Amino acid sequence: MNEPWVPVPPNSGFGIAHLPYGVFATRGTPSRVGVRIGDLVLDLAAVLDDPVFSEPSLNGFMAQGRESWRATRARVVELLSDERHRPWVEEALYPVSGVALRMPFVVADYVDFYASEHHATNLGRILRPDTEPLPPNWKHFPVGYHGRAGTVVVSGTPILRPQGQRRAPNDALPTFGSSTRLDLEAEVGFVVGCGSPIGERVSPERAEEHLFGAFLLNDWSARDIQAWEYVPLGPFLGKSFATTVSAWVTPMEALTSARIPGPEQDPAPVDYLTGAQNGGLDLRLSVTLNGEEIARPPYRQMYWSPAQMLAHMTINGASLRPGDLFASGTVSGPERGEWGSLMELAWNGTRPLTLRDGSTRSFLDDGDVVTLTATAPGPNGSHIALGEATGQIIPAS
Amino acid sequence: MNEPWVPVPPNSGFGIAHLPYGVFATRGTPSRVGVRIGDLVLDLAAVLDDPVFSEPSLNGFMAQGRESWRATRARVVELLSDERHRPWVEEALYPVSGVALRMPFVVADYVDFYASEHHATNLGRILRPDTEPLPPNWKHFPVGYHGRAGTVVVSGTPILRPQGQRRAPNDALPTFGSSTRLDLEAEVGFVVGCGSPIGERVSPERAEEHLFGAFLLNDWSARDIQAWEYVPLGPFLGKSFATTVSAWVTPMEALTSARIPGPEQDPAPVDYLTGAQNGGLDLRLSVTLNGEEIARPPYRQMYWSPAQMLAHMTINGASLRPGDLFASGTVSGPERGEWGSLMELAWNGTRPLTLRDGSTRSFLDDGDVVTLTATAPGPNGSHIALGEATGQIIPAS
Repeated sequence: MNEPWVPVPPNSGFGIAHLPYGVFATRGTPSRVGVRIGDLVLDLAAVLDDPVFSEPSLNGFMAQGRESWRATRARVVELLSDERHRPWVEEALYPVSGVALRMPFVVADYVDFYASEHHATNLGRILRPDTEPLPPNWKHFPVGYHGRAGTVVVSGTPILRPQGQRRAPNDALPTFGSSTRLDLEAEVGFVVGCGSPIGERVSPERAEEHLFGAFLLNDWSARDIQAWEYVPLGPFLGKSFATTVSAWVTPMEALTSARIPGPEQDPAPVDYLTGAQNGGLDLRLSVTLNGEEIARPPYRQMYWSPAQMLAHMTINGASLRPGDLFASGTVSGPERGEWGSLMELAWNGTRPLTLRDGSTRSFLDDGDVVTLTATAPGPNGSHIALGEATGQIIPAS
Repeated sequence: MNEPWVPVPPNSGFGIAHLPYGVFATRGTPSRVGVRIGDLVLDLAAVLDDPVFSEPSLNGFMAQGRESWRATRARVVELLSDERHRPWVEEALYPVSGVALRMPFVVADYVDFYASEHHATNLGRILRPDTEPLPPNWKHFPVGYHGRAGTVVVSGTPILRPQGQRRAPNDALPTFGSSTRLDLEAEVGFVVGCGSPIGERVSPERAEEHLFGAFLLNDWSARDIQAWEYVPLGPFLGKSFATTVSAWVTPMEALTSARIPGPEQDPAPVDYLTGAQNGGLDLRLSVTLNGEEIARPPYRQMYWSPAQMLAHMTINGASLRPGDLFASGTVSGPERGEWGSLMELAWNGTRPLTLRDGSTRSFLDDGDVVTLTATAPGPNGSHIALGEATGQIIPAS
């Protein structure tokens, strides 16, 4: 790997092996595509000769396909590591602290999976204590559902506490009000770059042709609204008020060193879900609440791989579009400190967390700031840091 | 109402009181916005001085809001009824049989509701015979879920039979293959023209500011895939392979004569779902299978109104975007001949339909053509005809 001439702080996680894409604007200029290196943003609209980088989303670039993704990445590495380019490329670098970061892509369809065995088991134990914790279909395919694309927001966007109907277990009638059981869900999201037509299934082996990148995602969840609404057609308003994603999209190519075999799958899944080697990803998530780490969910424990999710999503002939977002579902490991939601960490309110300031939490309070971060192995013992996904809860209006 | 100078066949349902919008193209020309009158299409890009009508979708026009919708409709009536405009406007009329009709709008988010009490009751009796047919939440809010926006297709698009996993009731393991229980669902869809920001709820009284139009929608459903997947997160691949909509969007203003009070709601819904008068619509649907009418679902029987669906969808602060599509769910009346799905008409395969040709159907065969049509009262005893939604089943590839 080339050394960049751009200064990169030690252990920044945004070295030349990473190079995530985002959409940014400087004061008085239109939003355009940039790449993060260290604490700087490289303005791709200024240094690359393709109008897609002047667009206010990654969708046009993503739709160009894998060869373009590779060539662009190689060119950016060259620009940032060959000293001869320094004089003119330096003009196109901005401190990340001085730019506005926008939603990096226009979400086409948003699908949320439920791919952590530990999370699904925990929720089964909490919500359906008298039955087997995993639903009968859970080990046969990655269970998922469609979420609301229009309310996916970029990291930093304030999160308005939702209002809605809920019914307490012993009440006959529902009541209306602000959610009193507002939760976070620490997830990893993936975005489709290159689409596929109706009728064409995408096998796990071919997932790499379609998958553009990964990022962190907080699937904010109003547990009280969700509990009252979700039978029989699934989660709706308990989720659709907001979903936060990182401002930076990490190219799948930057995650090469993070690839690992997924867990053994027993029973063996049906044919269309088999075939991709090294389907797992060694991403190490961290969840902080008001700056205090409350969980370290390990993505390597996820039962279903991103390639399997993509194969399942298209097995019925559904098309893919640039900007299709699918998320892993809450990332939880086997240990309590590895659980990616307050529902699990405080076990449905029965074991509240005590924070450093002495306060306790079963669910989120107004003013709380939740931040997801993650690291992954990079080449030669280095690491990369996924862009953070953060949001502060503000009271219902 | 003015008389048009354009010839309109008697009882066409596409008289000057209707004027639905669509997107069309003539040979070798780009797709653009048109209005249907009789058996003709008026090219709005040619006769109105606004570039939104040269776009290949209604989204730009819809986003302009209600004043623009009204002014445009008034101007089209004037162009088609004032003889002085005839010489130049005639140049912009094309026979509808000679144009290609495209998907009329880009779907932002797609939400499918479940608003027919008779349909929900029938499905409860079939699927959960040992419990109350309606879920406990059903009369407290319009139950709904997000569907796949990217696979909404225009009337006439062939429908590929989906493949997937299903598990028969007495089997231990799932099998994989083409769906053997492919069904139709006769629904009415509504499209949002003018959006709303995150955090702002749209009351039923204000629904008219946002609702642009209505059309027919066939929510094709693979009952076997759906049955195996839908617990606990709702329908996914059993629905996401295709959804057919009419090529013509009927403006809400054209449905003024179809407005009726909705059914009495008991228990009274909570405040945010009350307030809109005349929330019902007297749309009379017809479902034909290979040209033979198999059901006449009455929309006037729907429990929840479109304004209530919109109010519910935004009560948690979710935003609306131009192109948001929401559908009513299957329209079923109290009588067997009024049920809008084969699941109900053939009662889960126990009472197969016998067609005129002597063949029987519990679900759809390859080659079957399903067509939804509907009429609604127009002014002065006339009627309007919603654009048909049709599709033919083709074998899985």
